[in-house]
Amino acid sequence: MDEIITLDYGSGGKKTARLIENSILPALSNPALNALTDGAILGDLVFSTDSFVVDPIFFPGGDIGKLAVCGTVNDVAVCGAEPKYLSCSFIIEEGLPMAALSRVIASMKAACAQAGVQVVTGDTKVVERGRGDKLYINTAGIGFLKYPGLSPAKLREGDAVLISGTAGDHGTAVMLARSGMMQTELTSDCAPLNRLCAAILDTGAAVRVLRDPTRGGVATTLNEFVEGTSLGIELAEGAIPVRPAVKAACAMLGLEPLYCANEGKLLCVAAQEDAEKLLAAMRALPEGENAAQIGVVTANAPGKVLMKTALGGRRVLQKLAGAQLPRIC
Amino acid sequence: MDEIITLDYGSGGKKTARLIENSILPALSNPALNALTDGAILGDLVFSTDSFVVDPIFFPGGDIGKLAVCGTVNDVAVCGAEPKYLSCSFIIEEGLPMAALSRVIASMKAACAQAGVQVVTGDTKVVERGRGDKLYINTAGIGFLKYPGLSPAKLREGDAVLISGTAGDHGTAVMLARSGMMQTELTSDCAPLNRLCAAILDTGAAVRVLRDPTRGGVATTLNEFVEGTSLGIELAEGAIPVRPAVKAACAMLGLEPLYCANEGKLLCVAAQEDAEKLLAAMRALPEGENAAQIGVVTANAPGKVLMKTALGGRRVLQKLAGAQLPRIC
Repeated sequence: MDEIITLDYGSGGKKTARLIENSILPALSNPALNALTDGAILGDLVFSTDSFVVDPIFFPGGDIGKLAVCGTVNDVAVCGAEPKYLSCSFIIEEGLPMAALSRVIASMKAACAQAGVQVVTGDTKVVERGRGDKLYINTAGIGFLKYPGLSPAKLREGDAVLISGTAGDHGTAVMLARSGMMQTELTSDCAPLNRLCAAILDTGAAVRVLRDPTRGGVATTLNEFVEGTSLGIELAEGAIPVRPAVKAACAMLGLEPLYCANEGKLLCVAAQEDAEKLLAAMRALPEGENAAQIGVVTANAPGKVLMKTALGGRRVLQKLAGAQLPRIC
Repeated sequence: MDEIITLDYGSGGKKTARLIENSILPALSNPALNALTDGAILGDLVFSTDSFVVDPIFFPGGDIGKLAVCGTVNDVAVCGAEPKYLSCSFIIEEGLPMAALSRVIASMKAACAQAGVQVVTGDTKVVERGRGDKLYINTAGIGFLKYPGLSPAKLREGDAVLISGTAGDHGTAVMLARSGMMQTELTSDCAPLNRLCAAILDTGAAVRVLRDPTRGGVATTLNEFVEGTSLGIELAEGAIPVRPAVKAACAMLGLEPLYCANEGKLLCVAAQEDAEKLLAAMRALPEGENAAQIGVVTANAPGKVLMKTALGGRRVLQKLAGAQLPRIC
């Protein structure tokens, strides 16, 4: 293992996984942690945390405050729980204008109202100039498990792979904002997904797993579903919804939409016979209006995610390897 | 209000309180948050969070990992709950040696074992050089309420004010380490206090409130107990246990032990008739061996904390005003 921690280790891809598996799990090992799900399932409780270090702190479609609420709400919701309580801890760099903090807090308030959660406890630290970057926010969330048993281990051959909308919006919007090239058509998809999760699970369909593809994007999350198993996933290139503005921005920035973070999208694997019912349930909500089936679970490529191109070729989509997009959330 | 956030706002004193009261509470207001207790009490659950930004990350008697476990365990325990689950989120500055992270994690493991808690969920972010300072850790904690009703609102005239040991050890040890003047007699008191809290509460004594006097020290925490109420606290100067090495270091550094952070001490207010029983229960444990009564609750100084000096004079101990000790936890 490298002796120095580099930005790659925070990408959410292979190096992040290696850091967790080699350095953190062996020391702190217990069944809930070892499951490496978005949230720990503790009897009726689901508990999750994320620190947000997005740069810049304001971007088209959101800011670090909205992201901090939605990110943790979504991690709890995809476990099959109803998110209820958040903690919120600020690490402020000396010199942050009070007005910026107030704007972030107002945005947290709006996101909490939208998601139906409350910030019930918090903490504030201030560090010297040059020891932070304006503002970092940690949220932890508690939810109550309503739909137990969701797990990538439930995948079966022939299952449908669904996405709730367009891929890559958040990552692309933040990278554009960082480069100074704002454009109005391209905004982060940052949104709470608990209502969408409940709508999906309330259909009674045979849902195997839900996950929000944040750092590392759709390609990395799908790899996490199948790695080390006897099943693979085959995606159909043309089926994956991507906004034209995202395609254009990715081409310009040298990015790939399937590796760009999403902050308001769900991946859902479910029985193929329930796919239409689930897509209808998603499309009934604004946050799922562009839902689509993007692939199937296959026994032909164990542990792999394949992309079937428009010309009928197949290429392997690896997990994100390095730091394509540092500090994207 | 100042337009720019300065280090003072992170001191745990008056400016931190003002930031919370003026900027955070009005937006995020709800009964659990507004109580401003160390942890939110949510039915049977207690939920708390803290981000740790201590500088340096290794200091005599502990490190940021031990502190991150003990700090949150203690915030949950002083609410009358048994801490059970922690989340842990790292913000790593690019360039941190992997060995340093591993040492911190090993220390978290040991502290978790001592406190009987588990880290069940986590997150890892990496920021560029100069955007952090080696390592920041957030922990959030969940506990189960066992002894409900603890509150400074329960204080009565004549109550005893107890401390579980010497004041100012953590803050002084960290400040000495930061200045490069290490000395072996002076170590942080960083320790989990859940066992001590349970021992106190299991006596069945009329305990009004427990609190761990961290940022802002004993003087600030006692002020929080009485501010805005019709009661005050009178301390007896000679009764407050302070290590000779802490006294000497404070004199040299221009600090006051009663404003220095503690990370392994409890303040306990209880009925005077139970004081001896409580002191005996505390002294039966190593973490309470230097427990002492340091003062009484009085109706003569509403809202104030007074220090009765050895010569019989009285001076007011205010809350910590500014940033005496930035980044002490």
